[in-house]
Amino acid sequence: MRSYHTANDWVSATALSAENGALAYVSAKRTRFVSELKEFIRFPSVSAQPEHAGDLKRCAAWLAEHLQRIGMERVAVVPTDSHPIVYAESCHAPWRPTVLIYGHYDVQPAAPLIKWRSPPFKPVMRGNDLYGRGASDDKGQLFTHVKALEAFLQTNGELPVNVKCLFEGEEEIGSPHLPAFVAANPHVLNADCAVISDTQIPAPDRPAITYALRGALNLELEVLGQKRELHSGVLGGVVHNPLQALCEIIAQLHDTNGRVNIPGFYDRIRRWDAKERAYMSKVGPSDAQMLRDAAATTGWGERGYTLYERATIRPAITVSGVMGGYQGTGIKAAIPTRALAKLDFRLVPDQDPQEIDDLFRQYIAKITPASVKTRIRTLMSAKSALIDRSHPAIAAAARAYQQGFGTPPVFLRNGGTIPVVNLIQETLEIPVVMMGFGLPDDRIHGPNEKFHLPNFFKGIEASIRFLSEISKWQGNVSA
Amino acid sequence: MRSYHTANDWVSATALSAENGALAYVSAKRTRFVSELKEFIRFPSVSAQPEHAGDLKRCAAWLAEHLQRIGMERVAVVPTDSHPIVYAESCHAPWRPTVLIYGHYDVQPAAPLIKWRSPPFKPVMRGNDLYGRGASDDKGQLFTHVKALEAFLQTNGELPVNVKCLFEGEEEIGSPHLPAFVAANPHVLNADCAVISDTQIPAPDRPAITYALRGALNLELEVLGQKRELHSGVLGGVVHNPLQALCEIIAQLHDTNGRVNIPGFYDRIRRWDAKERAYMSKVGPSDAQMLRDAAATTGWGERGYTLYERATIRPAITVSGVMGGYQGTGIKAAIPTRALAKLDFRLVPDQDPQEIDDLFRQYIAKITPASVKTRIRTLMSAKSALIDRSHPAIAAAARAYQQGFGTPPVFLRNGGTIPVVNLIQETLEIPVVMMGFGLPDDRIHGPNEKFHLPNFFKGIEASIRFLSEISKWQGNVSA
Repeated sequence: MRSYHTANDWVSATALSAENGALAYVSAKRTRFVSELKEFIRFPSVSAQPEHAGDLKRCAAWLAEHLQRIGMERVAVVPTDSHPIVYAESCHAPWRPTVLIYGHYDVQPAAPLIKWRSPPFKPVMRGNDLYGRGASDDKGQLFTHVKALEAFLQTNGELPVNVKCLFEGEEEIGSPHLPAFVAANPHVLNADCAVISDTQIPAPDRPAITYALRGALNLELEVLGQKRELHSGVLGGVVHNPLQALCEIIAQLHDTNGRVNIPGFYDRIRRWDAKERAYMSKVGPSDAQMLRDAAATTGWGERGYTLYERATIRPAITVSGVMGGYQGTGIKAAIPTRALAKLDFRLVPDQDPQEIDDLFRQYIAKITPASVKTRIRTLMSAKSALIDRSHPAIAAAARAYQQGFGTPPVFLRNGGTIPVVNLIQETLEIPVVMMGFGLPDDRIHGPNEKFHLPNFFKGIEASIRFLSEISKWQGNVSA
Repeated sequence: MRSYHTANDWVSATALSAENGALAYVSAKRTRFVSELKEFIRFPSVSAQPEHAGDLKRCAAWLAEHLQRIGMERVAVVPTDSHPIVYAESCHAPWRPTVLIYGHYDVQPAAPLIKWRSPPFKPVMRGNDLYGRGASDDKGQLFTHVKALEAFLQTNGELPVNVKCLFEGEEEIGSPHLPAFVAANPHVLNADCAVISDTQIPAPDRPAITYALRGALNLELEVLGQKRELHSGVLGGVVHNPLQALCEIIAQLHDTNGRVNIPGFYDRIRRWDAKERAYMSKVGPSDAQMLRDAAATTGWGERGYTLYERATIRPAITVSGVMGGYQGTGIKAAIPTRALAKLDFRLVPDQDPQEIDDLFRQYIAKITPASVKTRIRTLMSAKSALIDRSHPAIAAAARAYQQGFGTPPVFLRNGGTIPVVNLIQETLEIPVVMMGFGLPDDRIHGPNEKFHLPNFFKGIEASIRFLSEISKWQGNVSA
């Protein structure tokens, strides 16, 4: 056990239970915890942009040093071919369960900068919210567990369970190096359950456990036209403009009812029975709530499904970027030679990303007109994930939420993708508890991302309660 | 009359005709002429980009000073609300015809810079070609006339006809301020014919006179979606992505046969009789030649027309740019709030740009789905132009070409737009002679634009011959 800062940082906990001692410690340290979270957010750890590689390294080093200081052991920064993994553990009770805590310290790009009210990497408080890229996704949420661990270690000298931390720096680019690391280190990562806080709850007083995530497939579709940029006056109408051809191809991805046109795309999708859909309808957001969350006036998409269902049990394709032709002010009278679209597929059980990738390539080959060429590049893929809501680890999380937030959680599906959930389930064969502390209006991935600070502190409490609950758990205990 | 540089710059012309003296002068000054043209190209006079406004001012000042030095009079840099007009004249023979020479010193944007073998504003020779943005369009071609004027003035002390020069800096952005200037100064610009060298000839040994140009209409089409950028996982499939909607709208601009889908778009188009189409087929480029010029393997567009016809007597819409979503490396999982396309229409007789603009707006309003909003901005428009091939000024130009290039010119249509041609025809009521010296592979508007220097010198000779021919012309002479 290490002292944190100075002797007066200490809370005497001898007379209290470990849990109450940890909670009292959190109460006393709120200001410092927020300062530390701001320090964490200040690293522009944008994994998608190669120019930020150094920032990711520095952010990982900072996190590792922080884990070391709060009393975690075997702290390691594990290099990968791009951004490092941070590992730490505290395992002193072989007779107790082991919890694997996963989080990610990388963030989405901050562009468009002009839309931020304050700079994305200079976190500031406005009202009860802390603004900054990664504040909610995932630095703030990851940090709830770090602070819970600190509270136990600094008050009780030990954790109620064994804990292993796995914090990666490549979640936002599809975790390209994590599968190999997990597959190569099952003996290190071996645990009884995993917990991840990288999801949202409907409202501050409505906690939720996520039990389903969509999978993802990210592709680039390029259309190549004539070899030279041409004057659009002299030769407009003579060749098939690759930018126009790209738009024409994109327009063929959906029918007019918002259904994906790729043959075979829906073939393997699991049909949910009336009972599951009724449960979703009861606990999930209404169409009106979904539209409010989306800042939209009109819904869109596949008929026969609620907006919540469209976002969770139905797949989607988002055109997330198109680049082609002149991007500047005014006019440039030219036909470009190529155009590129970024496509973001979200997949559901039991769609297989590899099979969907193949179906997409076949479809594009079929609809590409003879007047242009197309080229497809797969950037990342991840399988969808489903967690059994009746697992005892989920029950422990539900009790922890009830204590931390004063109300029992609902069970929700989330349309996003956390590739590691499926990875941990399949490779380590343990359940993954998704305890989210984000809110629907956190603007994750968008400008002015924020984290609702009351949720930060409730999240720390929920994490403390969760570790205590797991310590009472009589499930399978890892060797 | 002024001395140019030094006394030894002079060529004695007393024993020669004015024309032969001028031609001998050109022969002797080739090296200097090329250096001066390079100086001219070095100004990055990109009219579309506000950051280059100063460069346009400096380029105009340089051109005015140059005209002053070669002996032109009443030289003036006329300010407009954006880029200035350069005017000069030499009118000492009221009994002779007056020629208005038009050209433009502004250029297209140079982007994408990465595709240039040498920097666009550092002109260099490779083989017989001078590379640089504006080398052909239109600095090099404009300069042929300036050097022809210099040759007469510096050898003979006067021009064979009255000459007025009108050089603008806004041609590439649709000449927004020229119409008002021309309309306000008919007494200044009054002439018997105008000559413009801003077009192409099929090959160095195949001169051509352009007798038809397409009109233009440049628009920006913006699609606005939900108010906030959204996570494409969490909400993909729930709202109509404005970038996808834009592609779907663009895809509805053409049918699968390359015909424009806008109702009424083709209604006013003039039908050409078999004789005109047979002439076009005889003198115009074949489909194979058009494809070689376009560096393309496959043609595209409206059925029932040759590629040359599609580029000249048929209209076209080019999507010249699309901006939407994430443009960086890798992945950003977001649904953008808006997307924008730049559209470049080319129109033919008797389509009216204003009417086409209206039809486009009506069509977009009709096909915009309720799930998004659209906004349209008109950037510029220009009418198409047609010149009577039997006019005596055209005959004079044909004889000049024959002498300058050693072969008679063919009469061609050009798919591009020179708004001033229609403007001069309609406002000053004089014919416009388009004596092009560019080549199809000059890559105007694209990277690695060049000017074939033998054409520069042949162009100067053709200009000298043209002014002489006009001096013999017995047509209507301006007061």
